[in-house]
Amino acid sequence: MRGPGEFEIIRDFFAGAKKLSEGVVVGIGDDCALLKPPAQGLLATSVDTLVADRHFPADADPAAIAARALRVNLSDLAAMNAKPLWFTLALTLPESDADWLREFSRGLLETAELFGISLVGGDTTRGPLSVTIQVTGSSKLPLRRDGARVGDGIYVSGPVGAASAALPVVLGQAAAGHEREEARRAYYFPEPQLALAAAIGELAGSAVDISDGLLADLGHICNASRVSADVHMESVPVSPLARQLAGENRALELAATGGDDYQLCFTVPEKHWSALEKLGLDIARIGTIVPAEGNPGVRSWLDGKPWSPTRSGYQHF
Amino acid sequence: MRGPGEFEIIRDFFAGAKKLSEGVVVGIGDDCALLKPPAQGLLATSVDTLVADRHFPADADPAAIAARALRVNLSDLAAMNAKPLWFTLALTLPESDADWLREFSRGLLETAELFGISLVGGDTTRGPLSVTIQVTGSSKLPLRRDGARVGDGIYVSGPVGAASAALPVVLGQAAAGHEREEARRAYYFPEPQLALAAAIGELAGSAVDISDGLLADLGHICNASRVSADVHMESVPVSPLARQLAGENRALELAATGGDDYQLCFTVPEKHWSALEKLGLDIARIGTIVPAEGNPGVRSWLDGKPWSPTRSGYQHF
Repeated sequence: MRGPGEFEIIRDFFAGAKKLSEGVVVGIGDDCALLKPPAQGLLATSVDTLVADRHFPADADPAAIAARALRVNLSDLAAMNAKPLWFTLALTLPESDADWLREFSRGLLETAELFGISLVGGDTTRGPLSVTIQVTGSSKLPLRRDGARVGDGIYVSGPVGAASAALPVVLGQAAAGHEREEARRAYYFPEPQLALAAAIGELAGSAVDISDGLLADLGHICNASRVSADVHMESVPVSPLARQLAGENRALELAATGGDDYQLCFTVPEKHWSALEKLGLDIARIGTIVPAEGNPGVRSWLDGKPWSPTRSGYQHF
Repeated sequence: MRGPGEFEIIRDFFAGAKKLSEGVVVGIGDDCALLKPPAQGLLATSVDTLVADRHFPADADPAAIAARALRVNLSDLAAMNAKPLWFTLALTLPESDADWLREFSRGLLETAELFGISLVGGDTTRGPLSVTIQVTGSSKLPLRRDGARVGDGIYVSGPVGAASAALPVVLGQAAAGHEREEARRAYYFPEPQLALAAAIGELAGSAVDISDGLLADLGHICNASRVSADVHMESVPVSPLARQLAGENRALELAATGGDDYQLCFTVPEKHWSALEKLGLDIARIGTIVPAEGNPGVRSWLDGKPWSPTRSGYQHF
C-alpha cells in the first residue's frame, strides 16, 4: 500500500507542532516560516545531520532517533548559552511509512515540548534515511570558543565517556546486562546543558559542547583562542557507565576522546572562580589554559606524567 | 588517497564565506553562528533538501548542483517577499573528494555573492549525496498563502514549463541540439523572483513559488485562503523552450503541472490592478479567485471549456 504523501505527512504527523510559541507568526505550511526574534540579544543557529547507519542504526527506535537529533542540536545552543526558540526538520526517508512517522514525530514533538522549542518548518524528501535539524536560539551573553585566556581554569559540566562506551551496546555489537537501558539513554538521550550554560554565562570566557571528544573539542577552544591547555586526566570525571562497560583504563580513554556525551567544556578566568564555586554546581576542574608558544594545542597528563590516548577524537571524514 | 577531513573541508572550501556581511557577528567555526537580525520586519526561513538521483543526477556538475540548491531556497524567500540575509549548508557526501568540493563550493559561494546572502554555518557528514540548505531573510511586507480573496486577479511572474521540459535533456534521457545549454540553465539556474516580489509586495494579497507545478501551487493558495481559482489556460505564458522540446500540446501540460520553474504565482485585489499595471512588469494574468463553495480548488479552462491535465503536480512521495 502506498504510504502518506508529502502533504499528509506534514498534516498528520507534524501538525501538533502548529501550537505556536511566542515569536512564531507563521509556522509550518507556507513558503517560509515567519518569525519575530526577541528584541534583545543575538540569534544563535546551528545545523546537524544524522545519517542512518553512521550516526544511528537504520532500524533504531524512530522516537529515539528523533530525540537524539533534536537534543544534539540543542546542545549547540547550550554551548553558546542560547535559549531555544524554534527549529526546522529536513527529513529524508526511503519510503513513506506511517508507523515509523508516527513514532518519529512523537519523539520529536515530545522533546520539543520538554525543551520549549517550536517546530516551524521543514522538508520531506525521498532518499536514504537522514535527519537534518537546525535550531535557533536567542543569547544575551553568548559563549564563544575564542574567549579562553592564559591562566583560566578549564572545566567539564559532568561525566564523560558514557555515550562512546554505550555505542557498541546500542549497535548490538556488545552484550550488556542491566546496563542496556542506561546505555540506550546515554546514547540517544544526551542532556543539553542549557541550565548550566545559563548559570555560568556571566562567568565563563569560552565554551564548547563535547561532541567529538573532550580533548578534541577543547582543542577547538585552544585554536580559536590561540592558547594551549594542560589537562590533568586524574581530574576528568569518568562516567561510571563507561567504567562498567569498558573497564577502568579504556574508560579513561573514552572520557578523553569519545564523542557524543554533550557535556560542556568551558573556561573561567581566575577573577570569577569564587563566584563559580558559590554556584555549587556539580562540575569538575580538569586543567588550566597556558600560553600557546607558537602552536595551540592540548597536553594531557596523568599523575604528573605526559599521557596520550591511543586514538584521537572522532572525525566524520 | 584519503580526502580532506571535516575541518579541512570547512577551512579550504568554505572559508571564502568568512567574509561576513551585515548582521553576521560570528559565522562558520563556532558551535553556532551568532546573528543580529534587522530591527524592522520579520524573519522568513525555509529549508530544502536535494537528494542525488532524485533531484539531480549524482554525476552532475557540482557547481550546478550548488547553484540550484541555493536558488531553489532563495525562491522561497521571494515567495514571501523577504530579502536574503544568511544561509546554512548541511552537506552529506559519500567520500571526501577535493575536486568535487572545490567546484561545489565555487558554485555555492558565487551564487551567494550574486544574491547577497552569507554562508554562516553548516555540517558535513559522510553518507549518500544530499544537499540541505536553509535560508533566512527579512521581510517588512510578507506575502503569505492565506491572503487571496474572491475577485482577486491571479498572475504568474513569467513563462512556465521550461524546467520540466528540460529535465529529460538534463538527465540524458532525451536528445537535444542547440537547446542543450538553455535546458541546463532552465533546470539548474532558476531565477529567484526577488526583485519582482519586492515590486508587488504592497499590491499582492498572496503569493507562492511554483516548485510543484502551477496548478498544484495555486491550489496551496486556495487551500490556505479557503477560496477557489478559475484559470484560463490560453493566458498561461508557456515557455518557448518547453514548446521546442515537448511540442505545443505537451508544453501546455508542463506549464500547468511541471515543477521547478520557480516563477511566482500571486493574487492581486481589484483595487490594486491599475497600480500593478503602471509597474509595467512582464507578468501574465491567468485567472480569477472565486468562492470555494465548500471545497477549495483550482478549475482550469481552455477556450471556454473545462480542461484537465493528464497528470497532476509533482509530489515527493
